[in-house]
Amino acid sequence: SDSYSLLILPGDGIGPEVMAEVVKVIDWFSANRGMSFDVRHGLVGGSSYDAHGVPLTDDTMALAQSVDAVLLGAVGGPKYDTLDFSLKPERGLLRLRKEMDLYANLRPAQCFDALADFSSLKRDVVAGLDILIVRELTSGVYFGEPRGIHADDNNPDNEGGRVGINTQRYTSGEIRRVARSAFELARKRSNRVCSMEKANVMESGILWREEVQWVRDNEYPDVELSHMYADNGAMQLVRNPRQFDVIVTDNLFGDLLSDAAAMLTGSLGMLPSASLGAPMANGRPKAMYEPVHGSAPDIAGQGKANPIACILSFAMALRYSFDEGQAASDLERAVERVLADGVRTADLMGPEGGTPVSTSQMGDRIVAAL
Amino acid sequence: SDSYSLLILPGDGIGPEVMAEVVKVIDWFSANRGMSFDVRHGLVGGSSYDAHGVPLTDDTMALAQSVDAVLLGAVGGPKYDTLDFSLKPERGLLRLRKEMDLYANLRPAQCFDALADFSSLKRDVVAGLDILIVRELTSGVYFGEPRGIHADDNNPDNEGGRVGINTQRYTSGEIRRVARSAFELARKRSNRVCSMEKANVMESGILWREEVQWVRDNEYPDVELSHMYADNGAMQLVRNPRQFDVIVTDNLFGDLLSDAAAMLTGSLGMLPSASLGAPMANGRPKAMYEPVHGSAPDIAGQGKANPIACILSFAMALRYSFDEGQAASDLERAVERVLADGVRTADLMGPEGGTPVSTSQMGDRIVAAL
Ligand SMILES: CC(C)[C@H](C(=O)O)[C@@H](O)C(=O)O
Ligand SMILES: CC(C)[C@H](C(=O)O)[C@@H](O)C(=O)O
Repeated sequence: SDSYSLLILPGDGIGPEVMAEVVKVIDWFSANRGMSFDVRHGLVGGSSYDAHGVPLTDDTMALAQSVDAVLLGAVGGPKYDTLDFSLKPERGLLRLRKEMDLYANLRPAQCFDALADFSSLKRDVVAGLDILIVRELTSGVYFGEPRGIHADDNNPDNEGGRVGINTQRYTSGEIRRVARSAFELARKRSNRVCSMEKANVMESGILWREEVQWVRDNEYPDVELSHMYADNGAMQLVRNPRQFDVIVTDNLFGDLLSDAAAMLTGSLGMLPSASLGAPMANGRPKAMYEPVHGSAPDIAGQGKANPIACILSFAMALRYSFDEGQAASDLERAVERVLADGVRTADLMGPEGGTPVSTSQMGDRIVAAL
Repeated sequence: SDSYSLLILPGDGIGPEVMAEVVKVIDWFSANRGMSFDVRHGLVGGSSYDAHGVPLTDDTMALAQSVDAVLLGAVGGPKYDTLDFSLKPERGLLRLRKEMDLYANLRPAQCFDALADFSSLKRDVVAGLDILIVRELTSGVYFGEPRGIHADDNNPDNEGGRVGINTQRYTSGEIRRVARSAFELARKRSNRVCSMEKANVMESGILWREEVQWVRDNEYPDVELSHMYADNGAMQLVRNPRQFDVIVTDNLFGDLLSDAAAMLTGSLGMLPSASLGAPMANGRPKAMYEPVHGSAPDIAGQGKANPIACILSFAMALRYSFDEGQAASDLERAVERVLADGVRTADLMGPEGGTPVSTSQMGDRIVAAL
């Protein structure tokens, strides 16, 4: 079968710990499914800053461009809070997203049956929840120019004398391509997309709404499309999240809404994500996979972290980068089986108990279940 | 005693219905508490567009500038969806906020004990919830220039050929003044403020963080201040909202986060808001009061709307504009008593039943309880 090239960037905090468990899973698929992985390793975020003085080196950036898929752990930590903006761990992540042009960020929010009681929401509101947020990832206010903090000395009304500026900027083309991703994904699910913006307040939101509608009308007339203001979207996600199937939204709204949606499930330690770009010469999309959770510096190095989000991110890699849908499902089922058996990392340990395991034991159990 | 001048702008949808109940309450305070109100009426939003072709006339704007407080119902409706951006109902509301310079938007999210089961969250997560979101209301991406939709014809990579732009722009002075509002309010509560931005991604967020910290260090050293990224804020509101007391954030984040927080309580029809500006010559702040809920065109004119949010907005006017704290508390207690008696508009009617009442009957009950 094919050979798949991977770049592993464990990052900071619990990143290295959870990634070590993914490596076990990769090894299992090599040994048992005749897949061949060419795996490289690199640094990103604070760990790269510590070693090289920058949150991502040009060499690592070039390597990321050359592989079939990047697997990323997590970046950031209080240690780096005082660094200059351009050197912060996050800049490494944002550079990867931007230069690889990973415009479609897929964030499933799925409520696992065995874990539904962990949600702060009532079981009957979230049981069976399965939504997919498609977040635009390479444009908007994250990257728009002009940006920065400037002196505003000639303004006598401005106590403090500074001004901070960021620019929300979307082209119609940027909106159309991520809309297409959302409609394609909807066709494989229940054929419904809800697009969110603030078209009542922002002209960029009007353009967003019009272009998403244009793609629907001209290319996906079979898909049902609705529009919702993002503030109402935040409300509706809390009120009745199961009304949604696929949600498509911009970079900043997607950041908040996907985090809120993730928290609805009650099991942040379980949620993977995929960031996809245009197809490369070999037909595979540029791709990076990472857990939704952060670097959790408070529990780093203690064997407490849940590796499942990172392992399920690798399952997404199998599905979206390598077209190994069967292997992806097998891995997802192995995770479900281990959970159904009551195996629990600290974050999943509830009143009804279970078998407590460390990060590494959880990885072993999942490999054993495969 | 003093005479208080009010401008009532019922607006669209259920606005006029709920405002009619506020008028009963105003009349009660005139008749029974020796207060004298000078009440004017005007149009805003779609109703103003229908009558005058604009969502707010210059005359109404001037009137709003001249009174002690504006009471607003709600604006908007599908009927106006196809209007040009500059004529949309929302523009009337935004013009009032901007020209009156109402920079501090107070949005309490309070969970009423009698209604805690309406929340989609578990009772033990939201019972007793009482947080106050202070949202900056006159700047940021809502008003920043440049803005608009433009042709982008010379960009061959831009399929569709358009670009949509909005500008997030904050001066240090704009941040400091709303921070002061938050710290003042915190001193009357539990002395804790959490400030939310995306300083890890946006320079305007860095400025926000630095200026809020500066105000705290130089003027409110007794108040505890923490900072949180807004995406984490969205998560934490869902996970454990009671960790917060006062939250201060910018216009756009405040829009989403306050709506999410409102929905946590399960009773959107109960939540008031106040928008405050600088003191006028008479010492009272420029002020507008409005319910958090929208115009709900689907139930307009049917006597189904819950007038409590609008009535509690008037209670905020008594407290913040007229310094009638006792009258405000009396009104709030009357509302609580009516709820405790099981009196319920349609939106509050749960499985355990209650006495169903119309919008107008709810107003009468509250007046009777006063
Ligand atoms: C770490 C940060 C830059 C990032 C973002 O804001 O996009 C994170 O919150 C995310 O959602 O992946
Ligand atoms: C109606 C709309 C312009 C407004 C806003 O976005 O501020 C509303 O959502 C609000 O929160 O008051």
